[in-house]
Amino acid sequence: MGEHARLQDILTHLDQGLEDALARLMRFLEIPSISTDPAHAGDVRTAAEWLAQELRDLGFDTQVHDTPGHPMITARSPRGDARPLLFYGHYDVQPVDPLSLWDRPPFEPAIEDTPQGRVIRARGASDDKGQLMTFVEAFRAWKAVHGALPTDLILLFEGEEESGSPSLRPFLIEHADSLRADLAMICDTARYADGRPAITTQLRGLVGQEVVIHAADRDLHSGSFGGLAANPIMILAQALAALKDDTGRVTLPGFYDGVADLSPELARDWQALNFDAADYLSRVGLSQPIGERGRTALEMVWNQPTAEINGIAGGYAGAGFKTVLPATARAKVSFRLTGTQDPQAVRQAFQDHVRRFVPADCRAEFHDHGAGPASVMDISDPAFGQAKDALTQEWGQEAAYIGGGGSIPIAGDFKELLGMDSMLVGFARDDDRIHSPNEKYDVESFAKGARSWARILSALR
Amino acid sequence: MGEHARLQDILTHLDQGLEDALARLMRFLEIPSISTDPAHAGDVRTAAEWLAQELRDLGFDTQVHDTPGHPMITARSPRGDARPLLFYGHYDVQPVDPLSLWDRPPFEPAIEDTPQGRVIRARGASDDKGQLMTFVEAFRAWKAVHGALPTDLILLFEGEEESGSPSLRPFLIEHADSLRADLAMICDTARYADGRPAITTQLRGLVGQEVVIHAADRDLHSGSFGGLAANPIMILAQALAALKDDTGRVTLPGFYDGVADLSPELARDWQALNFDAADYLSRVGLSQPIGERGRTALEMVWNQPTAEINGIAGGYAGAGFKTVLPATARAKVSFRLTGTQDPQAVRQAFQDHVRRFVPADCRAEFHDHGAGPASVMDISDPAFGQAKDALTQEWGQEAAYIGGGGSIPIAGDFKELLGMDSMLVGFARDDDRIHSPNEKYDVESFAKGARSWARILSALR
Repeated sequence: MGEHARLQDILTHLDQGLEDALARLMRFLEIPSISTDPAHAGDVRTAAEWLAQELRDLGFDTQVHDTPGHPMITARSPRGDARPLLFYGHYDVQPVDPLSLWDRPPFEPAIEDTPQGRVIRARGASDDKGQLMTFVEAFRAWKAVHGALPTDLILLFEGEEESGSPSLRPFLIEHADSLRADLAMICDTARYADGRPAITTQLRGLVGQEVVIHAADRDLHSGSFGGLAANPIMILAQALAALKDDTGRVTLPGFYDGVADLSPELARDWQALNFDAADYLSRVGLSQPIGERGRTALEMVWNQPTAEINGIAGGYAGAGFKTVLPATARAKVSFRLTGTQDPQAVRQAFQDHVRRFVPADCRAEFHDHGAGPASVMDISDPAFGQAKDALTQEWGQEAAYIGGGGSIPIAGDFKELLGMDSMLVGFARDDDRIHSPNEKYDVESFAKGARSWARILSALR
Repeated sequence: MGEHARLQDILTHLDQGLEDALARLMRFLEIPSISTDPAHAGDVRTAAEWLAQELRDLGFDTQVHDTPGHPMITARSPRGDARPLLFYGHYDVQPVDPLSLWDRPPFEPAIEDTPQGRVIRARGASDDKGQLMTFVEAFRAWKAVHGALPTDLILLFEGEEESGSPSLRPFLIEHADSLRADLAMICDTARYADGRPAITTQLRGLVGQEVVIHAADRDLHSGSFGGLAANPIMILAQALAALKDDTGRVTLPGFYDGVADLSPELARDWQALNFDAADYLSRVGLSQPIGERGRTALEMVWNQPTAEINGIAGGYAGAGFKTVLPATARAKVSFRLTGTQDPQAVRQAFQDHVRRFVPADCRAEFHDHGAGPASVMDISDPAFGQAKDALTQEWGQEAAYIGGGGSIPIAGDFKELLGMDSMLVGFARDDDRIHSPNEKYDVESFAKGARSWARILSALR
């Protein structure tokens, strides 16, 4: 039997087994594996054991590893001579508050008929239980048709993705040798906004930085000191305001080192997305893109770095008025990075910048938060083109290489700790309400997601 | 008997009656007239009645007026042909929390011997029961010697000064005709820092303004929107930072209209104060005066206007980090005004300034807080020179005309509603701990304060 015929058999198997696959997902979704809530620690473990048993039943050599937090699951298919691939997903879910906004209990999953088609409604349906089961079901169908699992697969599932992944990096470091594959397939992203299939090939990096300006050693009365004593809010405002110039460019010296313009191929793909910035902004009550002139909106969000103030506090901001000159003022600032921008250099440039605004009798205190470079995948790897073709065939429309404005730390961790590139393929939709009440996953996303993986596996194996 | 002999008799009477006067003050201080605490409303009335009875016993035509809040007391001496003077004080006190920081119960007053001399220890000893009793005791001694009260006095005491004086302006408006005197004597201020007697002849005005910048209609993820969507904290920071230029001058157009340089007389008096800005700032952990170059520190605090950010809040400023682009950011800004600066014009200029930084799809919302012009007394009124001489004689050192960086709303209210200038004379010390635990008033302040009023009365009558 040729490869093409076998793929067709796998796809048929998936189609015929859809209701069974949904039933399995329902059982998975019934487990309230909320990782951030200690009261649910037992449920998180139950979810890990449920998933591990599924993998064992499929023939994976499966281990549930204890960590200081929630368990890690690793699973391996038999060795062969194929290119080693790692598949990643997470079995923990977000909290469900406020419960009153849910139309049904979040851990009593159901298939609902909606005007937009059938949806799976439950916490975790999209993020990430439904998504990770797309590749598990693809492996199941492969095995049913081939009589054996695809070879040379490493599966990695974590139970802390929704609570900061504290155990992930230590685990990757400890198990680096056994986890290192040629490419990681991360299934935790969405299709493009219009529903077309997409591979995310670049993500912005992130540097988080907190700054506290200290002036007087106590709050002062602005009548007695105003105009004479340093005001830390003003110092902070002036330092932050000067982070961008009139054209929207970040002013830190060397900030743009490593930022590259789009390749012609990506520029073409992105152009074809027909991104409507006005429409995108209008959905959140805005209408005007900010940022550098001459850049498309997608470039601004996916391929250009930015400096953003995420929080600021100082003095009295409650009801009424207090004529205080506060002792301190603080802000949280983050930088989204692209290309090969160096997070530590950006952090240092920001700190140097702030210090230039601080008079000699005041001081700036810095608290470093997370830092990671941008993830830029090497799409000259043939796997990308093969996966893109496979997605195009499955969905009947051209798959796109897209970017992401946010960071998916796991991709950076894989690169940094295992030297491994990632391919981000997911089937979620923008309207899946992940992290919100009434989360859902389209049955179409689930069914065609599994079929997509079958096609990609077939192309790569 | 000549005026001089009579004054000497009054001073002698005050000296001989000091312990009796202190005993009266002790009884007054025992009444916990905390105006901001509804549980003490009865005590506030008790204090009003106690004081009113004192005034009636002295022969004043005294009334206790009910208000929506705490009572107002008015008292009048017989008509004559002297210049009508109004004396103002307040009989309510600040709360006493935290009680655990008091060395003795705040309403069990005592005279304590300290290395710096005898002090009266109690809540309200300095602010303002002890101070207002200085002029009451002066009237008592005057009557004892002259056989009659000084003529043409109007006394006004409020019981809401420590809780925002909500009833004051309506009361002044309603009773304008009967309260209008030629000059108000306000006894609620301190001597100069080094202890020398002082008359406060100018106070800065105040405009309070809250601004809220609205951007998106919800908080956004800085990964999905950073660099494309407006960040209200950045808009706010840029608007606030631009309020002052590199030299510390406020940039609002027309802001300095009405600001006048010091007269030679005041410049001389202020110079003689030998104000040590470095020492003043060092007490709060600072060392460098900010503000315009070429101005003395006292000018900056007393005779120059300023713009200060009193509070700012936006986004996430708690523990950890949230990569949010917030929907809103807010700040509270106040302007201290001098000369004839127009509060409404300053408010408008600020709002216009902020709006220039707000893109078309965002908006600025303004909440107006209090506004009042500077109070600048006309020291060419001979009463000022006479009072200054009287203080100089009593204290054995040159009395000074000083300014105040803060606002004393009553002075502005008298000017605005009654067309009446004020003379601010008080005997408190910087270390009296007003509004704090262990408030005290020096017995010297009390004794020489009463003697000072006797001298001033003698000079003006």
